[in-house]
Amino acid sequence: MLLYRVGPEGFYAATDEDGDLRVLHSEPFEVRPGGWELGRVVESTKGLLAPVVPGKIVGCGRNYREHVRELENPEPEEPVLFLKSPSSVIGPKAPIILPPESEQVEFEGEIAVVLRHRLRRASEDEARNAVLGVTCACDVTARDLQRRDATFARAKSFDSFCPLGPAIRVDAELEGLEVITRVDGEERQRGEAKDMTWGPVELLVYASRMMTLEAGDLLLTGTPGGVGRLTDGDTVEVEIPGVGVLSNTVEDWRRG
Amino acid sequence: MLLYRVGPEGFYAATDEDGDLRVLHSEPFEVRPGGWELGRVVESTKGLLAPVVPGKIVGCGRNYREHVRELENPEPEEPVLFLKSPSSVIGPKAPIILPPESEQVEFEGEIAVVLRHRLRRASEDEARNAVLGVTCACDVTARDLQRRDATFARAKSFDSFCPLGPAIRVDAELEGLEVITRVDGEERQRGEAKDMTWGPVELLVYASRMMTLEAGDLLLTGTPGGVGRLTDGDTVEVEIPGVGVLSNTVEDWRRG
Repeated sequence: MLLYRVGPEGFYAATDEDGDLRVLHSEPFEVRPGGWELGRVVESTKGLLAPVVPGKIVGCGRNYREHVRELENPEPEEPVLFLKSPSSVIGPKAPIILPPESEQVEFEGEIAVVLRHRLRRASEDEARNAVLGVTCACDVTARDLQRRDATFARAKSFDSFCPLGPAIRVDAELEGLEVITRVDGEERQRGEAKDMTWGPVELLVYASRMMTLEAGDLLLTGTPGGVGRLTDGDTVEVEIPGVGVLSNTVEDWRRG
Repeated sequence: MLLYRVGPEGFYAATDEDGDLRVLHSEPFEVRPGGWELGRVVESTKGLLAPVVPGKIVGCGRNYREHVRELENPEPEEPVLFLKSPSSVIGPKAPIILPPESEQVEFEGEIAVVLRHRLRRASEDEARNAVLGVTCACDVTARDLQRRDATFARAKSFDSFCPLGPAIRVDAELEGLEVITRVDGEERQRGEAKDMTWGPVELLVYASRMMTLEAGDLLLTGTPGGVGRLTDGDTVEVEIPGVGVLSNTVEDWRRG
């Protein structure tokens, strides 16, 4: 079952058993998908918004060994968590803007986990039960600034640096997921959740010990090997089979 | 003029020209303090809440030279910004909880700046004009975890690690401020805004270039030299003369 947020109004819509997209009358963070009440068919999905507006975004660096090696980083003993500003979120089709402060903006395709409700010092079962679903994310990163700022705050938080969508898959089997990144149609990254050093549920357990996670908060689970530079005019796609394809164009901020 | 948020309801109250605290009927983020309409006198301020619930908290590390030296860090060439989770915010008198994950939790008394409205790639004038006011903050930090995680995310984001208050001074002269930290009545830190490497307005200009800042967002402007450890039973006070004294007790999480 897929959960969309449809603009410009921002109402929720979900797919029914026939795959039709219908207006969702239930509150998706309160009512379990089995009890969702669906209304009329939504004709157009041209105006899709980011499927969630997270209160906070917790990321995990260096969670696939291949990506650790390509950045010439040591293998971490614990998850390397970071915070990414919620102001960086954009929806499907919206442009990623290359800011003048960076000469090296890179894509990082990722599996993103959306929380259904609050989580605090959670067990594995509690964490798994708190997952609303999974969506595609591009954790856009100014690599040159990331090398200068160990905190990652600047490198990962520019406006438009967190494309999300197009939908939240609410019945995803977390450990079976795969993520593929393409630039202008050419495959650049491919990774499977089973190749993560720490799986999505382990990361939620770990993160919830250090800070209370809230409904709508987002966990970015790290990127596979193959990251690379984005330039003006590129189209970057992040696909999670069974979830959808998140597609965004890239614009230099001076363009226009 | 001082702006308080009074619990348990969370209504705003402000001081009038006689220093009396009165219910504020105006929206403090929309109406300038000169136009604020005040109501009845508020008798008790026992239930004060954090004066703002920030959407995001942007901190600046190593902004006073003495603190850079005591941590044996190199002097930064640019502000070292980090993000602190909003879930870490507590109000005056609430306990700072020492989590089991750290053996070395330290106080960092700071001048915190609250934004009145959105700020994006701002000029100095725009940044200054977007400041609602100033409050006291304790940027509580698990120093042992900060040494392990370059991103600071874990070290600074535990629940209760961001005491704020008691009030927002809405007509503060930003460059003239001083901050003092005391533990159990003994002075441990004293710093003046004029000793910052980057002043509050410069930091807002810098931060607004990397991410859109929103109404209610908080900027932590760094801590002076003298940081030190907190232990169970301590009382830590952060004072900004003219703004107020933020007082919080410290509790080991196992206590009770």
